[in-house]
Amino acid sequence: MTDPTDPKLLASRRGFLTGAAGLGGAALLGAPNALAGDPQNLPPNIPDWTRTLGDGVAVRAYGKPSKHEANVIRRDVQWLTASRESSVSFTPLHDLDGIITPNGLCFERHHSGIAEINPDDHRLIIHGLVDKPLMLSMEDLKRFPRVNRIHFLECAANSGMEWRGAQLNGCQFTHGMVHCVEYTGVPLRLLLQEAGLKTNAKWLMAEGADSSAMNRSLPLQKALDDCLVAYRMNGEMLRPEQGYPVRLVVPGWEGNIWVKWLRRIEVGDEPWYTREETSKYTDLLSDGRARKFTFVMDAKSVITAPTPQAPLKHKGFAVISGLAWSGRGKIKRVDISLDGGRNWREAKIDGLVLDRALTRFYFELDWNGEDLLLQSRAMDDTGYVQPTKADLRKFRGTNSIYHNNGIQTWHVLPSGEVENVEVS
Amino acid sequence: MTDPTDPKLLASRRGFLTGAAGLGGAALLGAPNALAGDPQNLPPNIPDWTRTLGDGVAVRAYGKPSKHEANVIRRDVQWLTASRESSVSFTPLHDLDGIITPNGLCFERHHSGIAEINPDDHRLIIHGLVDKPLMLSMEDLKRFPRVNRIHFLECAANSGMEWRGAQLNGCQFTHGMVHCVEYTGVPLRLLLQEAGLKTNAKWLMAEGADSSAMNRSLPLQKALDDCLVAYRMNGEMLRPEQGYPVRLVVPGWEGNIWVKWLRRIEVGDEPWYTREETSKYTDLLSDGRARKFTFVMDAKSVITAPTPQAPLKHKGFAVISGLAWSGRGKIKRVDISLDGGRNWREAKIDGLVLDRALTRFYFELDWNGEDLLLQSRAMDDTGYVQPTKADLRKFRGTNSIYHNNGIQTWHVLPSGEVENVEVS
Repeated sequence: MTDPTDPKLLASRRGFLTGAAGLGGAALLGAPNALAGDPQNLPPNIPDWTRTLGDGVAVRAYGKPSKHEANVIRRDVQWLTASRESSVSFTPLHDLDGIITPNGLCFERHHSGIAEINPDDHRLIIHGLVDKPLMLSMEDLKRFPRVNRIHFLECAANSGMEWRGAQLNGCQFTHGMVHCVEYTGVPLRLLLQEAGLKTNAKWLMAEGADSSAMNRSLPLQKALDDCLVAYRMNGEMLRPEQGYPVRLVVPGWEGNIWVKWLRRIEVGDEPWYTREETSKYTDLLSDGRARKFTFVMDAKSVITAPTPQAPLKHKGFAVISGLAWSGRGKIKRVDISLDGGRNWREAKIDGLVLDRALTRFYFELDWNGEDLLLQSRAMDDTGYVQPTKADLRKFRGTNSIYHNNGIQTWHVLPSGEVENVEVS
Repeated sequence: MTDPTDPKLLASRRGFLTGAAGLGGAALLGAPNALAGDPQNLPPNIPDWTRTLGDGVAVRAYGKPSKHEANVIRRDVQWLTASRESSVSFTPLHDLDGIITPNGLCFERHHSGIAEINPDDHRLIIHGLVDKPLMLSMEDLKRFPRVNRIHFLECAANSGMEWRGAQLNGCQFTHGMVHCVEYTGVPLRLLLQEAGLKTNAKWLMAEGADSSAMNRSLPLQKALDDCLVAYRMNGEMLRPEQGYPVRLVVPGWEGNIWVKWLRRIEVGDEPWYTREETSKYTDLLSDGRARKFTFVMDAKSVITAPTPQAPLKHKGFAVISGLAWSGRGKIKRVDISLDGGRNWREAKIDGLVLDRALTRFYFELDWNGEDLLLQSRAMDDTGYVQPTKADLRKFRGTNSIYHNNGIQTWHVLPSGEVENVEVS
């Protein structure tokens, strides 16, 4: 399929497309074209959508994607969980680009389904070691000063099925428990100041209004530093599955602690050791001990295309695309390997590089159809480098399902199809 | 309603809420609360959404807003235009915060309705003064290197109805022909390099595939500088009403030239003087002459709350919120006046300040119920200061409907209701 007479495309920045992309007379006359779905619509023919008026405005007062994008959806893995109410759906990372996730495609994780809250009736209580307990309506909350911050949210169990080896065939499933939006919220610090902290206050407990009453302990210092009591994502109110009308935003920390449908914050002097931070959301080591309070999501990255759901369709020039993020700061650098980690080259980081947000990287490649073992490796601005899965297992064993930030390998076959593999 | 014994709230950063926000015993026992929609659901009562399991995952593979947000929609003004196909809907700026607009709420402007394009059949032709004409499928286009950029898009006619005086009662209608998303697209420069520009190439003409065949001339230098041939917004593919599957992104320039449903780019040596840049989208001055090629959207701002659709509901502490933007660069500073422009104080700019993107500002206020004449005034990093409407009219007359970036005034009444007014 490759044309051996083609000049090297990467060097010249000309001729990204090998083959039939030139606009010849034949194509203008509607002759068959390998790329055409329906030659009737190719130039110079006039397709129906140009011949007739389209829908007018306000037919869709709240818009939705084209019907041709019906395949771009969150997906779940039915055998993963026993019920749909305590389950997870995954962001289709392979079908997205940039760093902002559209609200309709942000992954979901529920312990008792989506609480469908009437915001007029919802209250957030702040009590415990405070001078003046508060019971805030949404209207109260919206009167406070607020800020807007773009952050990733990653479930602690993202990539969890991969601890014991390559299992799920697509980055949607291996890495799709992450999304990144702009949150609008009240700095939790302001609410705690409003309530007035007692001098022995050291920890908070945040609790949700869903029927699992999800609750987690949070050190006071983190709450004062950068946590938000957020009610908007990408400008509009939170979606129901993201905690409408209000959730906690805990930048860089595991998603489970970003309590959704937030109804209560209790201030105390020690952690609560709730179910979700003892028997769950802890990492069981090989010797039977468990790591205590592993809040931060360490630096991680994944190639989103090509991947099993987004194979390489053409030989020649190709752009590898992926995401990197770190719960400790900004992404400093991403490296790419084509040979399973033997050789590395620096990827190009595109656009915004924000503190604890998804960061997009690209790597340009002239692919001649050879097997590839694609890997990406993130480094954050603390100098931390994303480890291999082998290194992770050396220290952490294989009992855990949480905090797997090991380097992912995608095997690109000569056909362009891609498989989830591991290299030793 | 104000409590004269209240301490000054702004100074202390304590007590944002005057009155009944403290969590007293009475409220805990479910006693009547001025803020309660349905006291049955107040703590310590357990609402239904906590008593029962909610919907599980994958019930909504593509999510949508809560039913309680059904009022947060694009709206049109039916008397503005004779048909729905050549009309406009407005972004509900008063119902949003931050700088990212969710895709479903981005304003629409069509000249012949929404072209419903099958992306497999769509082609982008690049021809004219080039060495190698191109006919690109969407699959071709997606193989090129791409970048991600957050930019505002403002219709040249935004605020157009206000040229002759305050008319429309809500920032959704006066300023809602603007939105801001993250675009993913191929730098137009790369496509022109692929085609190979002839030495006499100086202008482009971009043409849409909708039945208005919208077309505009664009100087080559701008195309090479920063224009994108974009196919994604906020990560996912463009929405149909935003030009699916591909549109032009022309940072900082009037929205009309961001041609949607892009099917053709012709390279020439002079402008085409199309209908949409001669009889339309030009500014007719008082002396009968018209300004030629007014591409750039000058610095502008608007207070989005309080506004007629978002009145001030409480005396005491309040946060004024608004947006500023400039087609020439970044927003440097925003000032607020409470008295119709006599006195000005600097607003607080929040979060990201990006080149030619919406920028969010806030201003904190202790409102005792007096009349306010609220204004905001933007300055960009070229030093340009947003003018008054009076100054604009002095130079531009009142014949135009385009490029009205004058300072907006909102009259806040003692009731908290807000009206669109002008001050002389």
